[in-house]
Amino acid sequence: MTQSILFKNRPIGKPKLSDFEFIKEDNDFNIKQDELLLETTYVSVDPYLRGRMNDAKSYIPPFELGKPISSGIIAKVMASKDEKFKVGDFVSGRLDWKTRQISKGDGLLKVDEEKAKLSAYLGVLGLTGLTAYLGLNEIGKPKQGETLVVSGAAGAVGSVVGQIGKILGLTVIGIAGTDEKIKMLTSEFGFDHAINYKTTKDMKAAIKTAAPNGVDVYFDNVGGPISDAVLFNINQFARLVICGAISVYNSTEIPHSVSVQPFLIKNSALMQGFIVSNYTEKFPEAINQLARWLQEGKLTYTETIVEGFENIPQAFLDLLEGKKKGKMLVEI
Amino acid sequence: MTQSILFKNRPIGKPKLSDFEFIKEDNDFNIKQDELLLETTYVSVDPYLRGRMNDAKSYIPPFELGKPISSGIIAKVMASKDEKFKVGDFVSGRLDWKTRQISKGDGLLKVDEEKAKLSAYLGVLGLTGLTAYLGLNEIGKPKQGETLVVSGAAGAVGSVVGQIGKILGLTVIGIAGTDEKIKMLTSEFGFDHAINYKTTKDMKAAIKTAAPNGVDVYFDNVGGPISDAVLFNINQFARLVICGAISVYNSTEIPHSVSVQPFLIKNSALMQGFIVSNYTEKFPEAINQLARWLQEGKLTYTETIVEGFENIPQAFLDLLEGKKKGKMLVEI
Repeated sequence: MTQSILFKNRPIGKPKLSDFEFIKEDNDFNIKQDELLLETTYVSVDPYLRGRMNDAKSYIPPFELGKPISSGIIAKVMASKDEKFKVGDFVSGRLDWKTRQISKGDGLLKVDEEKAKLSAYLGVLGLTGLTAYLGLNEIGKPKQGETLVVSGAAGAVGSVVGQIGKILGLTVIGIAGTDEKIKMLTSEFGFDHAINYKTTKDMKAAIKTAAPNGVDVYFDNVGGPISDAVLFNINQFARLVICGAISVYNSTEIPHSVSVQPFLIKNSALMQGFIVSNYTEKFPEAINQLARWLQEGKLTYTETIVEGFENIPQAFLDLLEGKKKGKMLVEI
Repeated sequence: MTQSILFKNRPIGKPKLSDFEFIKEDNDFNIKQDELLLETTYVSVDPYLRGRMNDAKSYIPPFELGKPISSGIIAKVMASKDEKFKVGDFVSGRLDWKTRQISKGDGLLKVDEEKAKLSAYLGVLGLTGLTAYLGLNEIGKPKQGETLVVSGAAGAVGSVVGQIGKILGLTVIGIAGTDEKIKMLTSEFGFDHAINYKTTKDMKAAIKTAAPNGVDVYFDNVGGPISDAVLFNINQFARLVICGAISVYNSTEIPHSVSVQPFLIKNSALMQGFIVSNYTEKFPEAINQLARWLQEGKLTYTETIVEGFENIPQAFLDLLEGKKKGKMLVEI
């Protein structure tokens, strides 16, 4: 029996469990030349999936109703008629939320269990780590001695961004929403300062206190009022990496914020939307650097692993609520 | 008798005539070595001066209360102990709102009455033209065949931006606020389309109609709701040159707009604040190019010239109200 999770309803606002449908099928799985049979090991749930649930033009097409959801997945090769992969190999790629599936191998990468834990290839050595590394370097252009602010700092991407900032010699300030996360940022990830936006009344002032010399680079995972507060503290020639806007993903109305234009003019500042898939030619170099830092112990990561295929939708909903720390995965 | 205009009150919201104070003085004007005595010929009034009236950190220091206002000025050399300038020369520079003044020559450029009308050196061959040329090229990076939208399009900067866009082979859409301006954009400045935002109910739809292939470059002089409407129409990898935000310069509250972050992410788009003074090393090349286009008849400009030193404050207030076309100058 193969289990699949289909996209049942386009959510208005917060997604619900009933927006997903589980089906079971008997499949034969006769693979043809150049095909693989894959068994899912880990499924990544990510904030950007919420965007794909809207029927809107975006950088990747929206999910289709009645079709399986897809995301980053680590799978084991169970049968192969593709000479690049042999039975027992583990691969990573964008695959469907199914317990088993046939793939033509497009976009699959072999992952090496010897070098790092399998789950790391969906996190710090996967698109998460690449997003952090390339977003920070390609748009943020951090320079030693500068001040970096990271929102969603305890998340999968944010925690890597902050650590890279420290490796590169910046003062790093993280913003997150629970005291536990705040503590983790400074004690585990080496951030210089961390601010709990849920218990801080005046975020603008709190950022000013943590960043008395102003903010040179802002790595933005959240948008909304937190980003507004950062704007008031940016320096001349600041770079704002717009990587995510989790605070507005569930909005049913067009979200409004403080107008950024006057701040950008005053400070000759730059804001740029970052999508990791525009930088594929830089992936090998970035993965090598991240793997080196990981081996040297300069980079650490947190993951929340939920067990069971049937729990994928709930894991995704919990992620959107900010209930979990670090990279969120489901182990099958 | 020398007349001066001092900055009397920091305006809250719209500036008023009573925020300016006229004084008359008898001066001897004994110039020392390396000094010049200048008589003002043309005074430029510009939207950015409103920003300098606020007591806020910005790219140029705020005006000081009780001191003269300054802006771009063309003046005639009446006496000179500086070997670089002789009596009868005309110079341009940032000078005080005074009928006569002594200058040490810092930042003054000699202007050539043979090559172009004197007033052009405050407009298309001055900071206005440089702002248009360098903002469009350095941040907008226009490519032949792309679509350019310009807000404040009938203004001094906007009208030059649109014409450069046409010279470079783009489809150019201008946004302005009177039917007269709209007509001028297409008939005089060669814009492909022009939209009157004051009589258009659905700006988002109007921009979509004028730019069916989407917007690649947006040269923003205004901010506010017009810029919000453009955002809905940007293409992947769009570049938004944030040059001015005249719509919010008089705000007494912190202005809010549609959140830009989701649009920037979806489209991997870039927004950057532009200040011409960051690009001084590119001025000579830019002025040469602009002068060449002007001589070739590829570039035209409109100016509104008000007569009389005593009318400078009113000219500035009229400019902020959007009452005039093209570059606004006062002739003394």
